[in-house]
Amino acid sequence: MTVHSLAPRPDQYSYVFGGREPLLGIRPGDIVEVSTEDCFGGRVTTPSDVPSEVVPFAELNPVSGPIEVEGAEPGDVLAVHFVSIVPARPHAISCTFPLFGALTATHETAMLHGPLEERVWFYDIDLDAWTATFRAKNSDYSLAMPLDPMHGTVGVAPAGGEVRLVVTPSTHGGNMDTPEARAGTTLYLPVNVAGAMLSLGDGHARQGEGEVCGTGLEAAMNSVIAVDLIKGGATGWPRLENDEFIMSTGSARPLEDAFRISQRDLVGWASDLTGLDALDAYQLVSQLGLAPAANVCDPNYTMVAKLPKWALKDAQAYGGVHDRLRSAAEEYMASR
Amino acid sequence: MTVHSLAPRPDQYSYVFGGREPLLGIRPGDIVEVSTEDCFGGRVTTPSDVPSEVVPFAELNPVSGPIEVEGAEPGDVLAVHFVSIVPARPHAISCTFPLFGALTATHETAMLHGPLEERVWFYDIDLDAWTATFRAKNSDYSLAMPLDPMHGTVGVAPAGGEVRLVVTPSTHGGNMDTPEARAGTTLYLPVNVAGAMLSLGDGHARQGEGEVCGTGLEAAMNSVIAVDLIKGGATGWPRLENDEFIMSTGSARPLEDAFRISQRDLVGWASDLTGLDALDAYQLVSQLGLAPAANVCDPNYTMVAKLPKWALKDAQAYGGVHDRLRSAAEEYMASR
Amino acid sequence: MTVHSLAPRPDQYSYVFGGREPLLGIRPGDIVEVSTEDCFGGRVTTPSDVPSEVVPFAELNPVSGPIEVEGAEPGDVLAVHFVSIVPARPHAISCTFPLFGALTATHETAMLHGPLEERVWFYDIDLDAWTATFRAKNSDYSLAMPLDPMHGTVGVAPAGGEVRLVVTPSTHGGNMDTPEARAGTTLYLPVNVAGAMLSLGDGHARQGEGEVCGTGLEAAMNSVIAVDLIKGGATGWPRLENDEFIMSTGSARPLEDAFRISQRDLVGWASDLTGLDALDAYQLVSQLGLAPAANVCDPNYTMVAKLPKWALKDAQAYGGVHDRLRSAAEEYMASR
Amino acid sequence: MTVHSLAPRPDQYSYVFGGREPLLGIRPGDIVEVSTEDCFGGRVTTPSDVPSEVVPFAELNPVSGPIEVEGAEPGDVLAVHFVSIVPARPHAISCTFPLFGALTATHETAMLHGPLEERVWFYDIDLDAWTATFRAKNSDYSLAMPLDPMHGTVGVAPAGGEVRLVVTPSTHGGNMDTPEARAGTTLYLPVNVAGAMLSLGDGHARQGEGEVCGTGLEAAMNSVIAVDLIKGGATGWPRLENDEFIMSTGSARPLEDAFRISQRDLVGWASDLTGLDALDAYQLVSQLGLAPAANVCDPNYTMVAKLPKWALKDAQAYGGVHDRLRSAAEEYMASR
Repeated sequence: MTVHSLAPRPDQYSYVFGGREPLLGIRPGDIVEVSTEDCFGGRVTTPSDVPSEVVPFAELNPVSGPIEVEGAEPGDVLAVHFVSIVPARPHAISCTFPLFGALTATHETAMLHGPLEERVWFYDIDLDAWTATFRAKNSDYSLAMPLDPMHGTVGVAPAGGEVRLVVTPSTHGGNMDTPEARAGTTLYLPVNVAGAMLSLGDGHARQGEGEVCGTGLEAAMNSVIAVDLIKGGATGWPRLENDEFIMSTGSARPLEDAFRISQRDLVGWASDLTGLDALDAYQLVSQLGLAPAANVCDPNYTMVAKLPKWALKDAQAYGGVHDRLRSAAEEYMASR
Repeated sequence: MTVHSLAPRPDQYSYVFGGREPLLGIRPGDIVEVSTEDCFGGRVTTPSDVPSEVVPFAELNPVSGPIEVEGAEPGDVLAVHFVSIVPARPHAISCTFPLFGALTATHETAMLHGPLEERVWFYDIDLDAWTATFRAKNSDYSLAMPLDPMHGTVGVAPAGGEVRLVVTPSTHGGNMDTPEARAGTTLYLPVNVAGAMLSLGDGHARQGEGEVCGTGLEAAMNSVIAVDLIKGGATGWPRLENDEFIMSTGSARPLEDAFRISQRDLVGWASDLTGLDALDAYQLVSQLGLAPAANVCDPNYTMVAKLPKWALKDAQAYGGVHDRLRSAAEEYMASR
Repeated sequence: MTVHSLAPRPDQYSYVFGGREPLLGIRPGDIVEVSTEDCFGGRVTTPSDVPSEVVPFAELNPVSGPIEVEGAEPGDVLAVHFVSIVPARPHAISCTFPLFGALTATHETAMLHGPLEERVWFYDIDLDAWTATFRAKNSDYSLAMPLDPMHGTVGVAPAGGEVRLVVTPSTHGGNMDTPEARAGTTLYLPVNVAGAMLSLGDGHARQGEGEVCGTGLEAAMNSVIAVDLIKGGATGWPRLENDEFIMSTGSARPLEDAFRISQRDLVGWASDLTGLDALDAYQLVSQLGLAPAANVCDPNYTMVAKLPKWALKDAQAYGGVHDRLRSAAEEYMASR
Repeated sequence: MTVHSLAPRPDQYSYVFGGREPLLGIRPGDIVEVSTEDCFGGRVTTPSDVPSEVVPFAELNPVSGPIEVEGAEPGDVLAVHFVSIVPARPHAISCTFPLFGALTATHETAMLHGPLEERVWFYDIDLDAWTATFRAKNSDYSLAMPLDPMHGTVGVAPAGGEVRLVVTPSTHGGNMDTPEARAGTTLYLPVNVAGAMLSLGDGHARQGEGEVCGTGLEAAMNSVIAVDLIKGGATGWPRLENDEFIMSTGSARPLEDAFRISQRDLVGWASDLTGLDALDAYQLVSQLGLAPAANVCDPNYTMVAKLPKWALKDAQAYGGVHDRLRSAAEEYMASR
């Protein structure tokens, strides 16, 4: 088991997917300990810092990477297993951001309203209790809630020579902002360029489905990932797998198109795994599927389509790579 | 405890909300044993029956009702607790229906494609095992899945003198098709006319989130509901409550508008219950909320927004009516 | 030429399509002189009247009708030719209305913003100059603009026993709010119930495409319509025809679905009229069609798809009924 | 008057906006004679060529450029006046393309339908008669239609270091596919990088509004543009101006968001030019605006919002640059 470490210097963070030189080269099967900054690049340090003033717009949502994976070629699938995701600071930060979020006018849903109040919440993180504590700004309500750390932004270099801002999720992954991207889960990404060029960031100590206000509990993270490569396993869209579910994603607007993409992909995946024809797989997914929102605030919205693995009987996605990575993760954790 | 029975004759089923004389009058606190037909009006009796041929379009989705609730006035909220929902026949039926469903051209998402194949699946229902068994049509795959019975269509007479086809969910409820409408859950509906005029139908032995292919496991049901009235508790949209969650719904197109409505309502509801101001409640919902799709196939799509009740601390929705109805349900079940 | 007059008393106005007794019975070929109120029911009489305060919500957008057309049966098409539309008062009124319009949060596009300022503009109408004069409220800008009178709301009783609020456009017509509904144009509506039950109102002295702020130059109208019946000419959606164009409409959300419906219908109509197959007609419409927005503010948005009649060569829609009604209109106007 | 010529070799065509070295450097006020290939890169040469087979996906829609404009800096506005656009070959080509277009399932509006038939139409171009002739494939219908040449794709390097495929319209311009981009019109583009880096291509001999089937009359073009620079005139979205109208564009999904962006921008522009406050300008645009679809088939849909210039009285956009470029165009044409 080869273990790498990636801790970018401030000037090494990336704000795009594609078009960047790798910070690290690894081989399939390797493990990477990676530190990621919060979506504010660490610039919001007190509750009185105004995010839109202290963070230049072009420096929101830094990602750590890219990581070049030896042997990865277009048409392959990159498997990224989240071994562990642990908040790096004793606080996480959430805020409303001007003209961003699901319940406000935005640059795309353009209106004549001015922005909502820009409000910042600091949550105390208690790693021992595994909680974050919400404190209301306008009353004395406080509430401890369980941590459920995840990475909002994980992706590879896009196809066709595109370079995309980190904020936009699409076929290459990116800012999908799904709470499903938690430790114990494997993310499958299509490889579009040699080396895949994986980057990740935008840790959330937890996040509700839909990321309604536009931010989760934004937190720098100390994370560990295990990376593998499936040769020739081409997938059109990012997929996820945990011990219970296979999951497809779709990122698009309007939200029903994100839904359609995710469901269409899940129907195809279930058909591949079970031998059901398209309509029989459509039926199976229709009766057993779950369909939570991931984000309804980013430039593309993301929906997740989930099918319980027991519905697949003995079939295993991608030759059982999830189980192998799960074992490798346990081995790594045991060795620390 | 007054227990009524409502078993409509075939000619008594209704295909609209609004504009109909009541089949039954009850008082707040009463219990109703109600039988409902499946969405095909019971006309699909063998797997070779073609739904679009054997069911006249205007007779899809019959509902049982309306039930007039004494004392209900516009501005009140009707609480409908699902005590039990049990499939009435040894099979449930699902199908693809021409130009209906999430992954097909439809009358609204109009295209030049012809309809997909119209295929019918019969599921064997085993009440003892509490399962329904899927059998693929084009391969020999079969799979037993747990029952999770629900009512797809529950609503009251609309406001403004409108009469709406049962198939369209909106502020009056209707064909929301959410799996959350299961036994143990209380549905809150705005009262728009004197007597409320409650109807329900479209039972599903189970249904995935999104009702992707356009139908669940369609089943006639023997159901029991407990009904109560909250005077002056006006809500804009249907809400639900179970032992774990309060839930808001939104029914609209595009899907992000259904999402926005449900989240906006949940933010307001959480604010009312906790004393948080709007932005603090927005924050709380953003970090703790769940956002599953209900249906993405009906004339309006429906999203559900869920908040765990522990986030509300001691606050109780509508003066604790859910707990009281839960107790009444237990008492009823014990008395059978 | 039989000429009827319909001038409803205030208590006779209708706020729904469907479920109402006729105010007038006519025969195909008849002409009706009809007076319509403005969308405020005439209750906004000075610029300081606040529409949302002086008009009960349920009494917005009164329509004159229904008019029962002898012999009209489901499956027929009603042809309504606008002979003349003349503002009845020396002013027209426009306003912003709380949570209504394209550039504001609304009840469907639900957000946390409060409503925009509710502002009222009175336009002086000069019938001799055929102008309306805009006067800015917050500066001294004024501008005379040409009148281009139209009816925003024209429709028939819906199918399936539905009763719909006037504000929602759908297959039965209703509040389509297209500037194309001007004098010289024929509107084709599907007949859903015996007698068709035609109603109209919501006159605008003029309106831009999209009705962006939610209102046009709202005006009571003295209008004249010529009505005819095409037996068995079933159309799924309202269509229009003037001397230059055939036009299809679609009313739905999101706006691309309204677009798709209108284009799909126009492709089918062009195919019927020219003998082109569906793909050749798709090609013709793609290269020659116009696609203006009608409204992007009502509960359903409306798009119009237009094809120049020269592209149809000698083909005539509905056996040339537009030309015949045009002649009847000229005869009527000459006889006054 | 400095006149440049840009005729890229086949290997010099670009398939992205951003990240490319300039093919030509010019100064504000210069004129460029530029040749552009059709969207098929010239590879469809007979009606029996199947576009999806003869053109690699990554080589659809080549653009000529980039052209570096001396002195252009982020925050400036680039004015591109179309002096003339003339089809370069005796034919133009249209087609249906698999899973692309408004009335078909697509990669984003994902469904279970297979693609529609891929059909190719060759139009004969007659420059003297200024017509293109449609010939149906499945009947003997033919029709000469007027040429109305335009460029579907015109844009600059995006902000934030992004590189975007040519097919996607956004704030940097790109594949907006509006018939308004014809000779006599000035297009205003925001400058995001030093030198602006202008590229153009995708000529259409004509195109209906919405580009319904996904293609116009695709044609290689011999075009002439006059380019100027407005220092510090920052605009958020591409705008257009001709002798009659100022026009804003919005490119987004769903289509109502493209509409909102274009209308919001036009309200702001009208406010800037007339001194009206936002609500008064909203009112003016609402009553006088036109709102045609540009494309409803590309990865972002594009709407155009038009206001007649007489409504602005004496105000001139960008200091009258359109009129100056119009004069320069006339001088150039006279000098040939």
